[in-house]
Amino acid sequence: MAQPQRLAGYAGYQYFLVTSPAAFVAHVEINRPDKLNAFFEAMWLELRQVFQQLSSDPDVRAVVLSGAGDRAFTAGLDVKAANETGPLSSTNKGAGAAADGARNAAKLRRHIAEFQDCISAVERCEKPVICVLHGISIGLAIDISCCADIRLCSKDVVFAVKEVDIGLAADIGTLARLPKAVGSASWVKDVCLTARNFDAAEALSVGFVSKVHESKAAALAAALETAGFIASKSPVAVQGTKELLNHSRDHTVADNLRYTGVWNAAALQTSDVPAALMSGIQKRKPTFEKL
Amino acid sequence: MAQPQRLAGYAGYQYFLVTSPAAFVAHVEINRPDKLNAFFEAMWLELRQVFQQLSSDPDVRAVVLSGAGDRAFTAGLDVKAANETGPLSSTNKGAGAAADGARNAAKLRRHIAEFQDCISAVERCEKPVICVLHGISIGLAIDISCCADIRLCSKDVVFAVKEVDIGLAADIGTLARLPKAVGSASWVKDVCLTARNFDAAEALSVGFVSKVHESKAAALAAALETAGFIASKSPVAVQGTKELLNHSRDHTVADNLRYTGVWNAAALQTSDVPAALMSGIQKRKPTFEKL
Amino acid sequence: MAQPQRLAGYAGYQYFLVTSPAAFVAHVEINRPDKLNAFFEAMWLELRQVFQQLSSDPDVRAVVLSGAGDRAFTAGLDVKAANETGPLSSTNKGAGAAADGARNAAKLRRHIAEFQDCISAVERCEKPVICVLHGISIGLAIDISCCADIRLCSKDVVFAVKEVDIGLAADIGTLARLPKAVGSASWVKDVCLTARNFDAAEALSVGFVSKVHESKAAALAAALETAGFIASKSPVAVQGTKELLNHSRDHTVADNLRYTGVWNAAALQTSDVPAALMSGIQKRKPTFEKL
Amino acid sequence: MAQPQRLAGYAGYQYFLVTSPAAFVAHVEINRPDKLNAFFEAMWLELRQVFQQLSSDPDVRAVVLSGAGDRAFTAGLDVKAANETGPLSSTNKGAGAAADGARNAAKLRRHIAEFQDCISAVERCEKPVICVLHGISIGLAIDISCCADIRLCSKDVVFAVKEVDIGLAADIGTLARLPKAVGSASWVKDVCLTARNFDAAEALSVGFVSKVHESKAAALAAALETAGFIASKSPVAVQGTKELLNHSRDHTVADNLRYTGVWNAAALQTSDVPAALMSGIQKRKPTFEKL
Amino acid sequence: MAQPQRLAGYAGYQYFLVTSPAAFVAHVEINRPDKLNAFFEAMWLELRQVFQQLSSDPDVRAVVLSGAGDRAFTAGLDVKAANETGPLSSTNKGAGAAADGARNAAKLRRHIAEFQDCISAVERCEKPVICVLHGISIGLAIDISCCADIRLCSKDVVFAVKEVDIGLAADIGTLARLPKAVGSASWVKDVCLTARNFDAAEALSVGFVSKVHESKAAALAAALETAGFIASKSPVAVQGTKELLNHSRDHTVADNLRYTGVWNAAALQTSDVPAALMSGIQKRKPTFEKL
Amino acid sequence: MAQPQRLAGYAGYQYFLVTSPAAFVAHVEINRPDKLNAFFEAMWLELRQVFQQLSSDPDVRAVVLSGAGDRAFTAGLDVKAANETGPLSSTNKGAGAAADGARNAAKLRRHIAEFQDCISAVERCEKPVICVLHGISIGLAIDISCCADIRLCSKDVVFAVKEVDIGLAADIGTLARLPKAVGSASWVKDVCLTARNFDAAEALSVGFVSKVHESKAAALAAALETAGFIASKSPVAVQGTKELLNHSRDHTVADNLRYTGVWNAAALQTSDVPAALMSGIQKRKPTFEKL
Repeated sequence: MAQPQRLAGYAGYQYFLVTSPAAFVAHVEINRPDKLNAFFEAMWLELRQVFQQLSSDPDVRAVVLSGAGDRAFTAGLDVKAANETGPLSSTNKGAGAAADGARNAAKLRRHIAEFQDCISAVERCEKPVICVLHGISIGLAIDISCCADIRLCSKDVVFAVKEVDIGLAADIGTLARLPKAVGSASWVKDVCLTARNFDAAEALSVGFVSKVHESKAAALAAALETAGFIASKSPVAVQGTKELLNHSRDHTVADNLRYTGVWNAAALQTSDVPAALMSGIQKRKPTFEKL
Repeated sequence: MAQPQRLAGYAGYQYFLVTSPAAFVAHVEINRPDKLNAFFEAMWLELRQVFQQLSSDPDVRAVVLSGAGDRAFTAGLDVKAANETGPLSSTNKGAGAAADGARNAAKLRRHIAEFQDCISAVERCEKPVICVLHGISIGLAIDISCCADIRLCSKDVVFAVKEVDIGLAADIGTLARLPKAVGSASWVKDVCLTARNFDAAEALSVGFVSKVHESKAAALAAALETAGFIASKSPVAVQGTKELLNHSRDHTVADNLRYTGVWNAAALQTSDVPAALMSGIQKRKPTFEKL
Repeated sequence: MAQPQRLAGYAGYQYFLVTSPAAFVAHVEINRPDKLNAFFEAMWLELRQVFQQLSSDPDVRAVVLSGAGDRAFTAGLDVKAANETGPLSSTNKGAGAAADGARNAAKLRRHIAEFQDCISAVERCEKPVICVLHGISIGLAIDISCCADIRLCSKDVVFAVKEVDIGLAADIGTLARLPKAVGSASWVKDVCLTARNFDAAEALSVGFVSKVHESKAAALAAALETAGFIASKSPVAVQGTKELLNHSRDHTVADNLRYTGVWNAAALQTSDVPAALMSGIQKRKPTFEKL
Repeated sequence: MAQPQRLAGYAGYQYFLVTSPAAFVAHVEINRPDKLNAFFEAMWLELRQVFQQLSSDPDVRAVVLSGAGDRAFTAGLDVKAANETGPLSSTNKGAGAAADGARNAAKLRRHIAEFQDCISAVERCEKPVICVLHGISIGLAIDISCCADIRLCSKDVVFAVKEVDIGLAADIGTLARLPKAVGSASWVKDVCLTARNFDAAEALSVGFVSKVHESKAAALAAALETAGFIASKSPVAVQGTKELLNHSRDHTVADNLRYTGVWNAAALQTSDVPAALMSGIQKRKPTFEKL
Repeated sequence: MAQPQRLAGYAGYQYFLVTSPAAFVAHVEINRPDKLNAFFEAMWLELRQVFQQLSSDPDVRAVVLSGAGDRAFTAGLDVKAANETGPLSSTNKGAGAAADGARNAAKLRRHIAEFQDCISAVERCEKPVICVLHGISIGLAIDISCCADIRLCSKDVVFAVKEVDIGLAADIGTLARLPKAVGSASWVKDVCLTARNFDAAEALSVGFVSKVHESKAAALAAALETAGFIASKSPVAVQGTKELLNHSRDHTVADNLRYTGVWNAAALQTSDVPAALMSGIQKRKPTFEKL
Repeated sequence: MAQPQRLAGYAGYQYFLVTSPAAFVAHVEINRPDKLNAFFEAMWLELRQVFQQLSSDPDVRAVVLSGAGDRAFTAGLDVKAANETGPLSSTNKGAGAAADGARNAAKLRRHIAEFQDCISAVERCEKPVICVLHGISIGLAIDISCCADIRLCSKDVVFAVKEVDIGLAADIGTLARLPKAVGSASWVKDVCLTARNFDAAEALSVGFVSKVHESKAAALAAALETAGFIASKSPVAVQGTKELLNHSRDHTVADNLRYTGVWNAAALQTSDVPAALMSGIQKRKPTFEKL
């Protein structure tokens, strides 16, 4: 397979490699493989930038997110970096802290809110995001992938909601989103309260991923194929579907129906509908204007 | 099997055949098999009427909904009819529309709201509705069946959330209800964003249907048996259970407990409880007054 | 296995046996095996007391809840007792009641609210609760186990949401919590509307339980092991995780993220984080202060 | 003043007189003055029809609602009629009822829901409704006027939330809407718990009405003037404003901002904006297309 | 005026004097006048007990709450007591605390929740509570009176949301309830952020109280008269009205209408309606059964 | 009065003048007086920056926001600029637009969301904001001031919710926030549906402003005095109060009590409480650490 080219306008990023493997498809790789793609602050700030740019880029209609290297999607927080700076660093917290508890709390609250906002950028991205998980996929890997729309994995994946093992409750989105991504509350509590590992088969059986592939390469190929397929559909329809499903998760049926009606009252005024209907009749691939 | 007789009072419907295969059980068939039971406006308006009537009919305690013919529950919207009249018609929308965008939107909004309201009549029906899906079951088939209480299907079923294929986001209820009918958010996004087909086994594994049967006939027989079984229970208990579960989907646990307490404060003042308890002791089938 | 000793301070309970099989682990047994652990009012009042005490007991970090004896977790409401006193008793309700309907309703409402509050004590308990279900596990067994965090069962279990069989809609929490504990709405409606039995395999496939074991003994052993494992983690992290997941069920993602940020702003000011990090580096088991 | 002419298409109504006092303005009068405009079932069913028709009538941009005659906007429920038929009738309810409490409750619930739905039609009407209250304005007068957008009254008005005086809690909307129509919760509880009268000055001081006029005639003239003024504005802007304010009452600020953005994304695509801007520059009255 | 007698069953309370000035009316006095009725922990625990007992006491249909003595309704928290024990005590908090921040937080959270629950008992009381405020009415006085249904005051009252003056945000209910008790958000922020005093006239103008009286005696007399008036109405209607208004504050209009319909479906099955209608016709005072 | 000096770190702003009239107080002036402080896009982008910086600036504890010059707080949107660029520009919208309705809508939606987010920065600012309104205060003036915590005005102020006059529904926050800032829904509908002017006295009577002053100078002096007063209090208490009141507006009482408990569990661990209590006893002004 020829190396896909860098996507124009994304060359400046340091920790993420953004390429364009197919028309209207972007591939984002977490690119720190020698450290198991572990995150430190500069990385999540950059993650937000990348997905904000993708969100309004008219040349992108679907995104694949994966981790560079063979060993890990991400091993989560770079504990060594976290231990040196930031709110978990040993000089900064715990019984020995100098400042009073309320002032510490204010700083921590702002830090967590900023961190959450960076990861949520994946969810806010107006284009569908397909996440390919492989190897070590723990801690932040769960937070990030819960923000994606579709989750695939390879057989070798090792998942864990790792936070209780380092003395804290997951606060960057796993506890908010995981219970709404799968059906079994008992299973969610089990993996979150014990921090135990779970594998691809278990992830599939509870619906955390919707497909398991033999290898990272196979999973990535499938993700790119699905992304290409989605990118061939009407972007008005696809992006509306993502928005309305995200709205649905957090609203009642009645509220979502009302919102959907208002949304589609504008969205139906698109040339994509006649284009799609006509190409269906003519058995050819429709072309859609940029969005 | 002898042909079940038409249910009294439902003979006037044109697109739906309503029969009474057993005491207190109604069977509603979408009855346009030559067109794969595809819907146009008059049909969904009639669907609402049928289910409103069933909702308060004291002779009905459980409803089975299926599609006539061998080929389809429903192929969804009758695209040909939609192309000629209505908001998706080629003369009515898109870049060439004469009226301004806001006025078009107002018309579309009213149209969608009316359409949603018709389909929601299945959910509002106070009696449990068991939906039997077979053959082609796409587009509107998902919207409608998501309003039913129990979904069964035959092995030959072909499901698809088809809307993005014609350039629009599903707006008649699928995006509002499907994520709350199954557990895996990744799977919901997958089928809604790609419009791909999925089969009976997949539908069962994600919990969209609760049982797969060998054939439409077998599925229908099972549905009628379950409907008969439900109809033999206290209608006060059964209809309360449906209402409280519907309320539960859209409310917090605390809110539902409060509502349930108020609901049952009236519902427990029923002779059905002593009747059920007594018949349990006497090992005989209880008889319940109409509701 | 040696008999675990009674947990100090819990000897006074009459219907519940509370022992301490391991450090920081409490085991609560519903202790009326000769009556299939069926409940009457004094028992649910006591259940609330037990779990309120556990909730703030610094010597308890995880709880296992099971039913004494071989035959049943619980057969639910003691119908004979209910028939003699309380709101379902034959002298108290139905068409023949002397008081007016509104006054009856007020009494019933208070009774239901009190009953709900007792069962909800299991959910409110700040420590994780692992529920082991075996044998007959019907009616109230579902209400209670839905309040637990993790549900395990043995192969011999027989589940049923039994209420419609005695003429009433489940009102002590099953209709509020079961739809949020599993993914398939169709399955929930099926078992709640028919009151039919379902077994361990079905419970596992829909995610109601997260594991099935060969026998009650095996399930209990697994539960105690998991409880011990959880009890070895930071109690600050574990109890925060439970609280945030419970909050998540009833709130939007945005709301939960905000709440989580505020929660962890205090929780991160704990010595458990450095203790956990250090012990991870030193490959030894951390010790955490009481909470 | 010349008698305004009947509005075309509204001549068939029996209890409501609908006239067109000015371009794009409809005036609806409750027209049973000899009975103090008291309501019975046929009237509220007709009220719903009237406002449903107005809601989508392109010739109507603002509605004034008042009561015919000098003595009353409405004296509320026609107690004599209610005593003869319906759920409050003496043969139908109370300790002596033959049917069981649960079946009575089901009937009552449907009756109340239908009644609520009829009154809510005033709120659902897409055009602003200005309510003119005078004379006796009790019971249902509060329910109805709480559904209007703007409330005016004459000095002689006598208001009361009368329901507790006949043994029931107001259930047709007053308890749902009044607390959201005025600021003082203490005042709302006072008038709802005591059923005492309150006058125009008190209504103004708590914000229930936004203006008091010397006489019914003066209030009506002011209402018609305001209605005419509103009808001269862009109907896209006016109807959007009503919808977004109604949404705001029942949603968080964040939710409303999101809904508003989606709404206006369509609504801004109107020729009314350039028409309004241009006429502003040219100091002339703009003309807007029908909606 | 003769001294009203102690209400039977309430003699055991130490800090609250509960008398029965009229049939079905209870008068609760905060009874620590020498300390300006300032609260410490035993008092708020007792307050909860008093109102729980009143809530289900069939001999009570309306409650008046006031402060004993001439000088204060209550001066709020007894700062001296708070400084010695409890979470605000100087040995227990601040930079010098020995335990870690997370463990301190857990203790504080439980303490605040318990305190909130005690004060909320006034709101949970099923009978209307009329609060008479006079003299010093600061801090906790606002929390408590916000839980009452109707607020009256005397001219000499001095109000303040005092908490920021002692370095904390009001956490026992003022910030939750005050914005929903009055209309002006700007005013609420003003008094909460500055802790400044406000007087009777200001309280009336923003709707915090619904009436100002010349003296405490006059306010108390008016409160007792209103309580007596309410107690003469149908208790089914009055208690339903309170419940539905409390529900309304925290729910959408649609949700409240649904809840109201279910509530009244039971409540209308009361003999109070025919009793009230008949006595209306016969111009005599109705008698209602206990509730 | 000597000219207050520019606040360090805020000199780079072009359209806003930020000075420091007193310790811990910032004064932000909209600084385009020759154009009546009318806004165009660069201005609202800068407004967001200013308030984001203030939000986390430890040297700021209270903010005053006003408009430079004698004539206007702001005349709202700069219609001339809006007509040339942006979504309302004549080349960009209406019946003649070239792009299809759905693509136009997507652009408009992003534009509105960005605009809303800029204005909401005033509300998100962690420090209290006191808004001083004078002269022309229309359109965007209402959106902006609804985000402030306290609103004051001078006698000469002219308010209007101007949007319907230019053919659109207010979409930058007025319809979301105004109904929650004042008590009278009838008044809100009146001013929003008619776009009529209202003056200082009317604004005070409905609670939109909490005080009217003789002149802009007097209002500004009062605002600065209040800001100084607030800045002298514990910043932990003040900022917590703002956050909890903002949360309260959009949540139920139960939810807010829970959130408040968690918030204060951290906030009470501050040295501000002993500092405040001690200074109260010693009758001196407390000093608080930076936050």
